Amino acid sequence: MPAHPPRQFHLNAFLMNAGHHDAAWRHPRTQPERVTDLTYFQELARTAERGRLDSLFLADGLTLWSNARHNAVGGFEPLTLLSALAVATEHIGLIATVSTTFNEPYHVARKFASLDHLSGGRAGWNIVTSGNVAEARNFGLDEHPDHALRYERAAEFVDVARLLWDSWTDGAPVVDRARGVYTEEGAVAPVGHRGAHFRVDGPLNVQRPPQGHPLLVQAGSSEDGREFAARYAEAVFTAQQTLADGQTFYKDLKSRLARHGRRPDEVRILPGICPVIGATEAEARALEAELTALQVPEYGLQQLSGMLGTDLTGLPLDGPLPELPGESAINGNKSRFTLVADLARRERLTIRELIARLGGGRGHRVFAGTPEQIADQLEEWFTSGAADGFNIMPPHLPGGLEDFVDHVVPLLQRRGLFRTEYVGRTLRDHYGLERPAGRSAPAA
Amino acid sequence: MPAHPPRQFHLNAFLMNAGHHDAAWRHPRTQPERVTDLTYFQELARTAERGRLDSLFLADGLTLWSNARHNAVGGFEPLTLLSALAVATEHIGLIATVSTTFNEPYHVARKFASLDHLSGGRAGWNIVTSGNVAEARNFGLDEHPDHALRYERAAEFVDVARLLWDSWTDGAPVVDRARGVYTEEGAVAPVGHRGAHFRVDGPLNVQRPPQGHPLLVQAGSSEDGREFAARYAEAVFTAQQTLADGQTFYKDLKSRLARHGRRPDEVRILPGICPVIGATEAEARALEAELTALQVPEYGLQQLSGMLGTDLTGLPLDGPLPELPGESAINGNKSRFTLVADLARRERLTIRELIARLGGGRGHRVFAGTPEQIADQLEEWFTSGAADGFNIMPPHLPGGLEDFVDHVVPLLQRRGLFRTEYVGRTLRDHYGLERPAGRSAPAA
Repeated sequence: MPAHPPRQFHLNAFLMNAGHHDAAWRHPRTQPERVTDLTYFQELARTAERGRLDSLFLADGLTLWSNARHNAVGGFEPLTLLSALAVATEHIGLIATVSTTFNEPYHVARKFASLDHLSGGRAGWNIVTSGNVAEARNFGLDEHPDHALRYERAAEFVDVARLLWDSWTDGAPVVDRARGVYTEEGAVAPVGHRGAHFRVDGPLNVQRPPQGHPLLVQAGSSEDGREFAARYAEAVFTAQQTLADGQTFYKDLKSRLARHGRRPDEVRILPGICPVIGATEAEARALEAELTALQVPEYGLQQLSGMLGTDLTGLPLDGPLPELPGESAINGNKSRFTLVADLARRERLTIRELIARLGGGRGHRVFAGTPEQIADQLEEWFTSGAADGFNIMPPHLPGGLEDFVDHVVPLLQRRGLFRTEYVGRTLRDHYGLERPAGRSAPAA
Repeated sequence: MPAHPPRQFHLNAFLMNAGHHDAAWRHPRTQPERVTDLTYFQELARTAERGRLDSLFLADGLTLWSNARHNAVGGFEPLTLLSALAVATEHIGLIATVSTTFNEPYHVARKFASLDHLSGGRAGWNIVTSGNVAEARNFGLDEHPDHALRYERAAEFVDVARLLWDSWTDGAPVVDRARGVYTEEGAVAPVGHRGAHFRVDGPLNVQRPPQGHPLLVQAGSSEDGREFAARYAEAVFTAQQTLADGQTFYKDLKSRLARHGRRPDEVRILPGICPVIGATEAEARALEAELTALQVPEYGLQQLSGMLGTDLTGLPLDGPLPELPGESAINGNKSRFTLVADLARRERLTIRELIARLGGGRGHRVFAGTPEQIADQLEEWFTSGAADGFNIMPPHLPGGLEDFVDHVVPLLQRRGLFRTEYVGRTLRDHYGLERPAGRSAPAA
């Protein structure tokens, strides 16, 4: 191995029911009957592992994302699903989204520690603060807590989780049968946290995870979100429509790290991309058009209303968006609001055109082309300072993931941009990130 | 198959780290190094399935049960572990303990629905209200909520969970690609719950579980606990030291069902038993003595102090218990307090003797003998109105479970008391319990 191995891609398979395109479930290549079928996800997981991808990634919301009338929803909860997928795979990382707004740190720290043990060190936590009033209404609240307050709670939540993961020293169980000592005095210690949002005595009732801490991932791109990422995140998922926007975001986020005593290479920045793959460019475009033609306009309108925090019901589909509030008035996903509003303005899109543009990636970049063209795009973003890798969002599943693994990954491997074999055992190994040191064992 | 198949046993494998005896981890036949090793639990699960047992059962607490100095603790969280074990098994039920005191119904309903889908209908929920102030202190409270209030919250919690499981009708996804309709109008409906403890809009974001509802299990034997069980439980785990106590409890609980419009056979009553198995009675007694000799007295004293809600530190081990408060003063596990206090009084035990007696089953019945003697005991309790089956608590693992499966189960099968093959697919099938009807699908 060279002293300085060349910088390489990181790739996640972002799994989503029948696929990321909102009409994927109507396409003949998908299997929307199988969203509650474990074997379906096992097959997807094995495909991603065959491609040597860094991880599987599951998004999450604490409500039904849509009214279930026009999309294939109602599948698994991420932590239970990934625990099952840990058994069906050997190497690939397992990243679950869990909200800090409607959870308690003891539960969350414990479940991720458990998943990390189950999987031999492959757990990752995508930390979200939830952005939807419907989620609040499943947890006794009428309105969603304020954006800044959610991030304040999230910061303390992660602080507590890290204390809990460190409440056991590495190698705490000495298992001394003769003396009757399982752990030495002090090897397992309370955390005694007393904060504005949480009071937690500890210690955790799960031994320190194989990775020390599960990998910490974050996906908010608002000002609050970026500051949170700079302080805590080891991987950042982001939605960027253009190379220039991607470069700006990348530079901004990396520049924030020093203030928190961190090096730029301690965070991997991974924009989402929805690759619509065809053997020829014409085939790829035809597939994209086919998916667009399958969209249910009232579903798209509902999703768009949610992203914009603005009820669009009844507006003419072939007209422009109405006047929108500013980002400061949005209490949900602020950065997604701005991205969508900017896209509509920049390209002067009608509502129908905007629904078509958002159908594939809900604001993430959609790119239709041949495997070669897609590899070129990824390489360009990677080499020109917009990405350390990508969150791959296949428009349709399982075919879209199979096409990526079978036709795009080999090109990236040939170009020396992506691993041909897993070299480590843990998700941190795949990402090339250090294992956090824990507390020192007390003197014997 | 006869029109009225003979009444048969139900048997669960209650798994516990190195075994149920508190000194099991010091015994040469156990593997306390493996409590965070998934393959260890996979092996246990396969052993139980080889014995055609009804289910695996995992207890839980939201704190470290002891100071980790003198016992093998710090293993997996139950729901993540059982999700992984769903993959390693095909038939056996998967029962996880989850507290209603420090959780939210939306999360819990969702995770059990997910586990039920993952496992093809094998999930069970052992509903507990938590009994430990250390748990409260991991969730921002100084004291544990009052016993009656905990049960009141538990009842509303389960009501909400059942509404959420029924928020999708059975077979809701029609997956009509041509019309763009995944579910018909009304097949997925909000629950709109507004109660004293919870406000939950719903619907759940997981489709109706294969079993309709996961099997509902309950393990409290106080007055509040029995009333709760009579209203909600489909299986009751209970600790009973003598046949007479077992018969009294059985009769009492079954008699409470009618008031809730339920038949006696809608609940299975399953006392715990810790079987210490030897090829001869002398061998079994020697194993029991060997385990007792390995006990760490200060650990036993700490556990006993917890069960009695009374600090026993510094008292002479060879003296009697001090004066104890009445059950009404206990805010933790009331029925366990009374059982232990009665046992000490009835048999005039010293503290050391009591620690020895509780070492194997923490208040559950310990019985040492040959496979034949153990089968006789189980049959006697079963035929004389004290049990519908048993929660098997091997004193040491994996050997204690292997011995039970290889030597006791075949005897029960030969006597026609236990299945020789699984006849159904779901945990409800194994228990012979009906699948709850859901909401009717709306008219087309």
